[in-house]
Amino acid sequence: MREQEKKLPVLEIFGPTVQGEGMVIGRKTMFVRTAGCDYRCVWCDSAFTWDGSGKDRIRMMTASQIVDELISLGGERFNHVTISGGNPALLAQLTPLIQVCHEQQWTVALETQGSRYQPWFLEIDELTISPKPPSSTMETDWEVLDEIVTTLTENNRQFCLKVVIMDELDFTYAKQVHQRYDNVPFYVQVGNDHIEEQDTKQLLMYLLERYEWLVEQVMNDDVLRGVYVLPQLHTWLWGNKQGV
Amino acid sequence: MREQEKKLPVLEIFGPTVQGEGMVIGRKTMFVRTAGCDYRCVWCDSAFTWDGSGKDRIRMMTASQIVDELISLGGERFNHVTISGGNPALLAQLTPLIQVCHEQQWTVALETQGSRYQPWFLEIDELTISPKPPSSTMETDWEVLDEIVTTLTENNRQFCLKVVIMDELDFTYAKQVHQRYDNVPFYVQVGNDHIEEQDTKQLLMYLLERYEWLVEQVMNDDVLRGVYVLPQLHTWLWGNKQGV
Repeated sequence: MREQEKKLPVLEIFGPTVQGEGMVIGRKTMFVRTAGCDYRCVWCDSAFTWDGSGKDRIRMMTASQIVDELISLGGERFNHVTISGGNPALLAQLTPLIQVCHEQQWTVALETQGSRYQPWFLEIDELTISPKPPSSTMETDWEVLDEIVTTLTENNRQFCLKVVIMDELDFTYAKQVHQRYDNVPFYVQVGNDHIEEQDTKQLLMYLLERYEWLVEQVMNDDVLRGVYVLPQLHTWLWGNKQGV
Repeated sequence: MREQEKKLPVLEIFGPTVQGEGMVIGRKTMFVRTAGCDYRCVWCDSAFTWDGSGKDRIRMMTASQIVDELISLGGERFNHVTISGGNPALLAQLTPLIQVCHEQQWTVALETQGSRYQPWFLEIDELTISPKPPSSTMETDWEVLDEIVTTLTENNRQFCLKVVIMDELDFTYAKQVHQRYDNVPFYVQVGNDHIEEQDTKQLLMYLLERYEWLVEQVMNDDVLRGVYVLPQLHTWLWGNKQGV
């Protein structure tokens, strides 16, 4: 089978919408969400990618089928695609998708938690490595993370580290990450631990308060110097809805 | 008089705080606000820099006095300085300040509206050119703006264009700007035309609604493709307060 014809497990394709977080916050983009994750974060906002509840929505698609659907949804209105998961780094065969996006002159962003390396990381234009803090209940594999950061740095890739923060322990973890990789652009982000909240306004008020808390923590800290503190804009706008 | 001893009109020095808008949104930074502006935008949120009301707060400071004050306020907790106004591009003698910041290993960001060029633009690490839309009642000098964009592009500088949007006319203006300079990273930002609102929560709800409106406009547009849509985070957090 030709590389291009290998199929990827896709859970959602949507947009154009606004990237709500991280190094390209605010960017007009399309989203492709792949199925499957090696993590089970207790507060995962996309648990349907791994807990079986989204199983019937998974479609096995070739790169060119994905591109066709992106164009049918977004027409001429976009030039940026974000690949998210789950953990897309579980997929060895992502190169054809990245290539067909580049052929369309689209910029490709991708987020992964840094538990696996893939050679196609080097082809991603805006790569976010987001290791998970203690509140997730997951354990960081520092050896793998070291290897990823070293490889990306040696290849002069544009990438960043991002840590979601729920509490004081997560904050301490974020400082560890920043100290270990102090030359990498570093983002801390307010975690949403109210993923069941259906009242968007209530959720906004809670998240705003948490953002204020995180801003204050970072401003008073002398380890977190070269750092960005951000909310999730899409949650402020749309709460816990999917597909926006 | 030596270059270093020339004095700058400073209205505010504060931080560390979070950069609330534009290409470095979220960045932990210190602010230096200079006095004086060649514009009189009707919705200016810093009118005290030019309407006489802040006159008594202006201090004439040398570059090294400014650095001393930054260190006394921010200690070891920052490595980024944002110079804002007013319009700092009115000041011919900004090079010494930029240089002493660089000697401290601080990154320097600056925002100006693009009505004047200064040779020191080339020394700014993150330069935002923010031409003003029709709702400001100001007129864009396209010749000057062309010259600025051309010079920065030819010198491979990291810079962006940012347009504040209040209404449909401003949106049309933003499209013009993006079409004229389509290779420059482009930010559109929700304007705050409720600068007298004292109730921070009321203001937040209004600005959130306006952000939703702007996101929708941009998502449906096929001219604004390579674009970022952002709010002003500091206004969401702190409303119309100064010095935060």
